[in-house]
Amino acid sequence: MQKKFDFKLTKKMKGLGRAGIITTPHGEIQTPAFVVVGTKASVKGMTPEMLISLGSQVVLANTYHLFLQPGEDIVAEAGGFAPFMNWKGPTMTDSGGFQVFSLGEAFGTGVSKVARGDEALSPAQSTKKKEKLVTIEEDGVSFRSHLDGSTHYLSPERSMEIQWKLGADMIFAFDECTSPLASFEYQKEAMERTHRWAKRSLGHHNKLDTEKVQALFGVVQGGRFKDLREESARTLAEMDFDGFGIGGSFNKEDMKSVVRWVNEILPEEKPRHMLGIGEPLDVFDGVENGCDLFDCVSPTRLARHGRIYTHDGPIQIKNARFKKDFSPLEKDCECYTCKNYTRAYIHHLQKSQELLGQVLPSVHNLYFMVSLLKKIRQSILDESFDSFKKEFLSRYYKNLSL
Amino acid sequence: MQKKFDFKLTKKMKGLGRAGIITTPHGEIQTPAFVVVGTKASVKGMTPEMLISLGSQVVLANTYHLFLQPGEDIVAEAGGFAPFMNWKGPTMTDSGGFQVFSLGEAFGTGVSKVARGDEALSPAQSTKKKEKLVTIEEDGVSFRSHLDGSTHYLSPERSMEIQWKLGADMIFAFDECTSPLASFEYQKEAMERTHRWAKRSLGHHNKLDTEKVQALFGVVQGGRFKDLREESARTLAEMDFDGFGIGGSFNKEDMKSVVRWVNEILPEEKPRHMLGIGEPLDVFDGVENGCDLFDCVSPTRLARHGRIYTHDGPIQIKNARFKKDFSPLEKDCECYTCKNYTRAYIHHLQKSQELLGQVLPSVHNLYFMVSLLKKIRQSILDESFDSFKKEFLSRYYKNLSL
Repeated sequence: MQKKFDFKLTKKMKGLGRAGIITTPHGEIQTPAFVVVGTKASVKGMTPEMLISLGSQVVLANTYHLFLQPGEDIVAEAGGFAPFMNWKGPTMTDSGGFQVFSLGEAFGTGVSKVARGDEALSPAQSTKKKEKLVTIEEDGVSFRSHLDGSTHYLSPERSMEIQWKLGADMIFAFDECTSPLASFEYQKEAMERTHRWAKRSLGHHNKLDTEKVQALFGVVQGGRFKDLREESARTLAEMDFDGFGIGGSFNKEDMKSVVRWVNEILPEEKPRHMLGIGEPLDVFDGVENGCDLFDCVSPTRLARHGRIYTHDGPIQIKNARFKKDFSPLEKDCECYTCKNYTRAYIHHLQKSQELLGQVLPSVHNLYFMVSLLKKIRQSILDESFDSFKKEFLSRYYKNLSL
Repeated sequence: MQKKFDFKLTKKMKGLGRAGIITTPHGEIQTPAFVVVGTKASVKGMTPEMLISLGSQVVLANTYHLFLQPGEDIVAEAGGFAPFMNWKGPTMTDSGGFQVFSLGEAFGTGVSKVARGDEALSPAQSTKKKEKLVTIEEDGVSFRSHLDGSTHYLSPERSMEIQWKLGADMIFAFDECTSPLASFEYQKEAMERTHRWAKRSLGHHNKLDTEKVQALFGVVQGGRFKDLREESARTLAEMDFDGFGIGGSFNKEDMKSVVRWVNEILPEEKPRHMLGIGEPLDVFDGVENGCDLFDCVSPTRLARHGRIYTHDGPIQIKNARFKKDFSPLEKDCECYTCKNYTRAYIHHLQKSQELLGQVLPSVHNLYFMVSLLKKIRQSILDESFDSFKKEFLSRYYKNLSL
């Protein structure tokens, strides 16, 4: 009865970019697409009905977070994270590997997935933090929970078991997401381990998912180094994955090149997910260089803090100039928030710390990103990607030379 | 074009209870009814669509809060608090007088509107707190803002001007809500001042609202004292109000008597609003003794902290016994939350401090109270109030003798 996983290319651009359709047991995803993040089986403040009305096609939940709370067995009893949260469409879970990075090398240092180029960890910082919460060994990773300090263990096999129980349509092989500041030697070591973990993930998942209900994506690593990224893409391309994730980390300026190196090697007929990325510039670069899926918490996280996407660049709605501005967050925007509320009202809600002041801007920012990917898709079909990109970015990033 | 304010009695019970219909320029309210509270022009975490879907007929906003933030002029520019928050139905604002109590006598003492009978303010506490934030004089009240300590002034005239700008269909005369612990002498003094303020409110409102767009309700005070309550009802009944509020405060066990004393005197043909009340027992007592409207923040405030109304009494959803309970918050409940989510999911959301963990229980608790008043109304029409009350309360308050 369930329709198995499939990916069809609909249209190819001159370079690597393409439009396609992913089929999952819970519906289709028109790609390129923005994947909405529901970390703990909830997209912060949003009901599934809100997600549908803003055009979301697919929700990604975080394995690490659900593993710790409420635990994968409870989610499995609910029928998986999608029934648990009452989302009926396609779903993904990540591998838990990103937390190896965010609780390990980077924990408490302020270094994010994408380095700005002016950051550096002192060896003391690095060692101290790593010892504190994460220990990486060949078999797997020991974590201390960020919630209560309790000790946990993830390995390729455990990640597959947990993701099997969480029940998403698309899951990821267990990987190590290294710091963008790590040395070549460390990136190489981590990448090679990630390849061994990919093989173990594939083997273990095949034992669990004998009817092939879940699609398994391998995760390409290798940091900012061309030879490592190419080696990673070649190695994973030879394995029997249904698709690929391109894992961070990279310096912002390298991101485009990294994606191009990788996607020139990965098999064309399988979908590619750019993990944890999506500011507007990033998704244009990603699509142009062959990526099909993007997930990012930025739209909702920024919205909760008052940062609102508009086609003229982001605005901070808490700014006093919006106190008496009775226009919508963005003129001509068709989202629920813009059709029904004013900047003055959302300014008031945010200043008053009202719950709805976090919800309404989140609807708008998610709509903005989901719609942007839909427009990008349409521009590929229309063969107008280059002009659309130029027009969009010259308006959005007025201060950047393009 | 606008339909003016009107109240029609549909059915009377043997005693004081009745069912009716209030007509406002923004629609009808079938009474008795539960009024949903949107303190700062937002019912915490709820969109107006959610309010409609759970059956809300009318929203009350707080004059004091909107006066301080964003200020009544901004709300007026938006066309009133209802357009500001995109609520299209009937509306009310309170007078600001309750804050005379909550920031004055009671501030920081933990004494609420309804005393439990075992509370007492020391004179030192009382004086200290009163001096700190509120000064009450014949002309009006000086406040220090709870937000930033800035000084503000409310008087009957200012309250009418602010409420005129906030633009609700039903507004309240400026009153002083005293502490349930205040002496007879103070209650009498405050009540007499409230009567003078009622007269000034009426006079000033008539100057502002020359077309009689807003209905003005006078507020009966007098604490727990029969002679004061009766005097207050008689005095206000003689003034040209469109309806009446019955202001706190009283000891819990006195509430029913207080309401009866008052409603035996107030003119039958005008609606009566029991201000800031409604736990389930309270609304039965209120209806039975002649009240038509009830507002209370309890359903949403309790919900945000995990306390969920059910017909078998409240439950605390954060309790570990709900971790794997995949039934709805309440069996057979027709609210959005119960039709789509489980106790286990809401337990998880609350334990994970997810925004939706505050929203979904609020939908349920509001639906519970709004529906309870609808059922009570139906029982009046069916002449089955007594048996409905007995059945409901014996199940809800299993531990109480009725």
